[in-house]
Amino acid sequence: MSSKNTLVPTVIIPAKPYDFSFPLAKTALLVIDMQRDFLLDGGFGHIQGGSLEAVQASVAPTQRLLNTCRRAGLAIFHTREGHKPDLSDCPSSKLIRQAAAPGNGQHKKVIGDVGDMGRLLIRGEYGHDIVDDLQPFPGEVVIDKSGKGAFWNTTLMHKLKAKAISHLLVCGVTSECCFATTIREANDRGFECCGVEEATAGYNANFKTCTLQMIYWSQGLFGFVASLEPLLKCLAPYVSMPITAAGTTPPQTPPDFDGDLSIASLQKAYRKGLSPITVIQVVLERIEKYSAADPAVWIYRASKDSVFEQVRRLQMKWPNRDSFPPLYGVPFSVKDSIDIAGLPTTTACPPLAHIPSKSAPSYETLLSQGAIFLGKTNLDQLATGLTGCRSPYGITRSVFNKLYISGGSSSGSCVSVGATLVSFSLATDTAGSGRVPSGFNGVVGYKPTRGLISFQGVTPACLSLDCIAIIAATVSDARTIWDICAQFDAEDRYAKRCFPIPRHINSLGPQATFFTFGIPHLEALHVCSPIYSRKFNEALQTLQSIGGQLRPIDWTPFSQAGKLLYDGSFVCERLASLPDDWLAQNRSHLHPVIEQIFSAVVARGSTAIDAYRDLQAKALLMRQAERVFENGRQGVDVVVVPTAPTHWTVEEVLERPVERNSILGEFTHCGNVLDLCAVAVPAGTYPVGEARGGDDRDAGNRGDGGELPFSVTFLGGSNMDAEVLEIADRFDRSNRVGKR
Amino acid sequence: MSSKNTLVPTVIIPAKPYDFSFPLAKTALLVIDMQRDFLLDGGFGHIQGGSLEAVQASVAPTQRLLNTCRRAGLAIFHTREGHKPDLSDCPSSKLIRQAAAPGNGQHKKVIGDVGDMGRLLIRGEYGHDIVDDLQPFPGEVVIDKSGKGAFWNTTLMHKLKAKAISHLLVCGVTSECCFATTIREANDRGFECCGVEEATAGYNANFKTCTLQMIYWSQGLFGFVASLEPLLKCLAPYVSMPITAAGTTPPQTPPDFDGDLSIASLQKAYRKGLSPITVIQVVLERIEKYSAADPAVWIYRASKDSVFEQVRRLQMKWPNRDSFPPLYGVPFSVKDSIDIAGLPTTTACPPLAHIPSKSAPSYETLLSQGAIFLGKTNLDQLATGLTGCRSPYGITRSVFNKLYISGGSSSGSCVSVGATLVSFSLATDTAGSGRVPSGFNGVVGYKPTRGLISFQGVTPACLSLDCIAIIAATVSDARTIWDICAQFDAEDRYAKRCFPIPRHINSLGPQATFFTFGIPHLEALHVCSPIYSRKFNEALQTLQSIGGQLRPIDWTPFSQAGKLLYDGSFVCERLASLPDDWLAQNRSHLHPVIEQIFSAVVARGSTAIDAYRDLQAKALLMRQAERVFENGRQGVDVVVVPTAPTHWTVEEVLERPVERNSILGEFTHCGNVLDLCAVAVPAGTYPVGEARGGDDRDAGNRGDGGELPFSVTFLGGSNMDAEVLEIADRFDRSNRVGKR
Repeated sequence: MSSKNTLVPTVIIPAKPYDFSFPLAKTALLVIDMQRDFLLDGGFGHIQGGSLEAVQASVAPTQRLLNTCRRAGLAIFHTREGHKPDLSDCPSSKLIRQAAAPGNGQHKKVIGDVGDMGRLLIRGEYGHDIVDDLQPFPGEVVIDKSGKGAFWNTTLMHKLKAKAISHLLVCGVTSECCFATTIREANDRGFECCGVEEATAGYNANFKTCTLQMIYWSQGLFGFVASLEPLLKCLAPYVSMPITAAGTTPPQTPPDFDGDLSIASLQKAYRKGLSPITVIQVVLERIEKYSAADPAVWIYRASKDSVFEQVRRLQMKWPNRDSFPPLYGVPFSVKDSIDIAGLPTTTACPPLAHIPSKSAPSYETLLSQGAIFLGKTNLDQLATGLTGCRSPYGITRSVFNKLYISGGSSSGSCVSVGATLVSFSLATDTAGSGRVPSGFNGVVGYKPTRGLISFQGVTPACLSLDCIAIIAATVSDARTIWDICAQFDAEDRYAKRCFPIPRHINSLGPQATFFTFGIPHLEALHVCSPIYSRKFNEALQTLQSIGGQLRPIDWTPFSQAGKLLYDGSFVCERLASLPDDWLAQNRSHLHPVIEQIFSAVVARGSTAIDAYRDLQAKALLMRQAERVFENGRQGVDVVVVPTAPTHWTVEEVLERPVERNSILGEFTHCGNVLDLCAVAVPAGTYPVGEARGGDDRDAGNRGDGGELPFSVTFLGGSNMDAEVLEIADRFDRSNRVGKR
Repeated sequence: MSSKNTLVPTVIIPAKPYDFSFPLAKTALLVIDMQRDFLLDGGFGHIQGGSLEAVQASVAPTQRLLNTCRRAGLAIFHTREGHKPDLSDCPSSKLIRQAAAPGNGQHKKVIGDVGDMGRLLIRGEYGHDIVDDLQPFPGEVVIDKSGKGAFWNTTLMHKLKAKAISHLLVCGVTSECCFATTIREANDRGFECCGVEEATAGYNANFKTCTLQMIYWSQGLFGFVASLEPLLKCLAPYVSMPITAAGTTPPQTPPDFDGDLSIASLQKAYRKGLSPITVIQVVLERIEKYSAADPAVWIYRASKDSVFEQVRRLQMKWPNRDSFPPLYGVPFSVKDSIDIAGLPTTTACPPLAHIPSKSAPSYETLLSQGAIFLGKTNLDQLATGLTGCRSPYGITRSVFNKLYISGGSSSGSCVSVGATLVSFSLATDTAGSGRVPSGFNGVVGYKPTRGLISFQGVTPACLSLDCIAIIAATVSDARTIWDICAQFDAEDRYAKRCFPIPRHINSLGPQATFFTFGIPHLEALHVCSPIYSRKFNEALQTLQSIGGQLRPIDWTPFSQAGKLLYDGSFVCERLASLPDDWLAQNRSHLHPVIEQIFSAVVARGSTAIDAYRDLQAKALLMRQAERVFENGRQGVDVVVVPTAPTHWTVEEVLERPVERNSILGEFTHCGNVLDLCAVAVPAGTYPVGEARGGDDRDAGNRGDGGELPFSVTFLGGSNMDAEVLEIADRFDRSNRVGKR
């Protein structure tokens, strides 16, 4: 399907056995093992008796390929073969290979022995790293692998999927070994591979010839093989910026800031010379101005001085605009339940406020990639609520209409993005806290599979169900942040390792022509307001127009899981992270609605037996939901739901704060209970007057005559984030092209 | 290490780049894709334009290799490339390969199209299956793969590890494609591979030559290559039975039954012509006789008639002794909490007794592999207890000494194996129910990682912590049963898929020279009786003598997890599977100790908040335990503990039934809480008189002057079963050689 998407230019290059086509945005350059140990005198390859002439000759062509691919905006992946210093990741058979060979007249040095460039093939040693000319830039992926194939026991598949890659240009050493093995692995996993002849080499000329022939034999047994020159020529039109002989960008007049805070747009502008100071000045003015319209967005705002100090440090650290980190100068906000060292974390609950000495790892990661922190945002107290009306720091309101709720609990985060005060916000989602307010502010709210982003340093709501959420203007931006933040954190007890389930990449694959989706059964949709029902139907038509095929699914596990969260004992976990007498001690300091809810939870008197029954039920529902997302004729790629069933006014919520809150979670509650990933995506707008349908005669009096946003949420199976984001991104782009 | 183990003969064959050595018991023959679709006219290969001459010529040599390896007792693995009928497992890039090629002058048929032998490369079609001459025998592993590499998205690694394989002889088609790709994958995973030149072929002679050269180049870049004739010659001494030209065994005089019920021994005897009737007759006599000594072993015994009927059906179904299924004629018992259709499941709790219409899948699997069911065994009521003294069907006693407890809850299962009434028993383990009674009866009790064997059709004790346990005479036998029973069951809500964690096979690897182990800290061991302390020290010495290196570990997560199970809310899950009023209704029908325990659980009044706190604590402890088993300098391969701290007499337990029961679980409670795998292994015996140390002056009066068994348990990380079994097996064998 991607090849039919006009937003993604497709490049066609001459290759064997026939022309190789690749969508630029979905193609990565994979540079295999261009390490000193394989290329330089005295390295592992040299000691093994390899002739270095050919491999050394491949460095210059590889450098040309690498520079061009960088300029054309391809994702760049480097691999390095090597082992931990204690050799625990080196199979014994590999370790003893040279020493065990009785007829070995060459050196008998083995992996881990000391050579001229440090211990051979050991991570952290000089010889293990990539040669100077091909050193990775910030933001490029470096995969350390212990095998010859780069997919075995690495996060390569995860990172490729995270970046939506379906096509690979492959180069590096040695052709016969790691280059070929990795291409074979990639081919099995559904990637379209094209080796680049001049940019790969080995220690044996015949092996290289034969290896390349096997790749393209029989209509491309493992893929394609191209020559460097025609490839570079075909990429030339996409190289957006001039390039000097040294591979750097010549000086040019900096562009004006067009006001667009999307990450891709900022990246492009900064590389053309725009100063982050300009951007941050604009943003700070916007924030100042917006605080008059809605003073409840922020709990803490970083001072002007501290923000510009961040920018200055950034400029000093990254002087070269050819190699900016991916979030260079990108402004963001943080939900005030997430720790930042030295700043109070309030969780909108003053009795819980504390000043942590350590920041949440996800925050640290964002800073390390160049993002600029602007402040901490308001939320429903204790991240408990979906309305944005439950904070002692004031009620946040929809960026579309101040009479309407912003949604919660990540209210301030979603408003800060919706009002284009920041590019993105780091938030959380337990029962819908990231999704619902995204829906009410026309932004994207993405809740990755639990455990992929560290949840350390976050005030728990329901620890075993809590999840980091990313709020951004587009699916593509949300995906960029996820790609950067997702890494296994052994200190997070619920963290998952980034090994995707063994399933090929078909649903985002190079030749996929359609995707499948399911929706709740009709009765379950009756809860929606008339306008929401209509907008949902429009969204389904859009989905079908971009290749979606609607299939019947069993909605029961989703609705049952939602009920478990709401009616069952799970809500008791909200009290489990607090001391026994906390509620009694702090009752009077709580927001009255929160106090009411917590008291009701205690009054229910759920027993441990109830809890274990609920957990057994949950396990069963998870298995059933797994079946819905099964690869095959019975399953679907995604389930699509309205993000919320309706959009209340602030007044309506204040009237019946608990009941109307709970209705909002109808389609979000199941997400973390079933360990799904989910992304809420804007799906057009509708006139405020239609908010309550024909029955609502004074609708016109209530609004400003403007529009309100509609949103749908894509739910996917555990660890199927890349697939879900792919479909959500297509939907998102098609809406942007069409209407806004 | 294996190469130094004298029990495992090592074969040395001429090969390139130098002689290939392989331990017979740890080597598998891997036959790649010898399918009609690749070998016969009109198949997929033929349609693609492949010349069939070479691949067809490889069938006969492959057949010779296969027959010889079978006779030499090697594990046999076959692979088949192909896809599900809905093609959902076929990446789009693979699917369109032929059709997309503009210059393709050959057939344009693609995977899934209809050819002469059915749909091309589709599972279930005639063309997809293996050619007649090489059809798999029962018990041989068939791996259906969707890729070229046989490790991608299959259970191959799991099955190889389950069978303790470290070395592979590889043959099949095509050399350049699936054969070579699989060898590369196997090499990365630590397997020593040797391709067999005459038994592999491709569609292109030059590719084959080059592929084989690449394998053995540079001291064996991916492995070794051998020629068929010298290989067959070297294997000849290990071919235990004569073989006719047709590959069958000529008639011979059946051997006498030597009384040994171990699976390997029975397999050998049956293949030599021993009749299962002889074995079953002996076994039924033993059972009859033993019931006088201990009438409490069985809750249900299959009638003589029904057993002989099973044997007759077996003989009819499997007339050819060259291809018996692996459990042909192997007698076993089943704990009476596991369902067998048409027989009551009592769980030693008459009010719960019911007659299921469906058998547990694990039971069905055992029958399908030829095992003979003899009856259902006694247990502590509701599988709650570690003593064997809590059943309305009587108190079972240790096979060593009738004054001493058998342990529980799988009391009858362990006695039936310990008294050599059956070869193995299917039991369960939640808090130690499989391990503790194994320890008290001198047998092996193995609790695989939870979820690897289906828990369907079993009365739950604590469903989220319950686990099938395998009771057998040796670690090797327990491993055989696990290998047969472990398969993903989508109907089991807690089932895990058999994809092992991505970690090479070093700890059982071909060249591993040592393993590492940890033990509880000294204070934690103080609970042991003096003789148990002494025996545990002896066991540690044995471990060191077979290559074990003791390393310090953090015992806290294990002890804390044990406490969680015992003192925390987890015990409430025992009531979660029963109706609310069940206890009140059935109080008077329960065993008094069980009634007391359940009442105490209810009286504790654990809340749902308590439960969620305990679960959060559990998640943290699991992460900490994970670190103990980490691959690397900090981690250990196994943690070794005494299976129990002491061995009570029946009298002692009856005196203080709850307190003394709980002490028995000191080293087993943590197992399922932390999702570990665990195997209890006999570790010698000691004189009954020493049971209570010097303080116990009338010990002599209590015993029969005989011996009591000691046992240690090996604990390993989740899904590290193969590694743990490997070390436990070495320990088990070294004890057998030494003492018994």
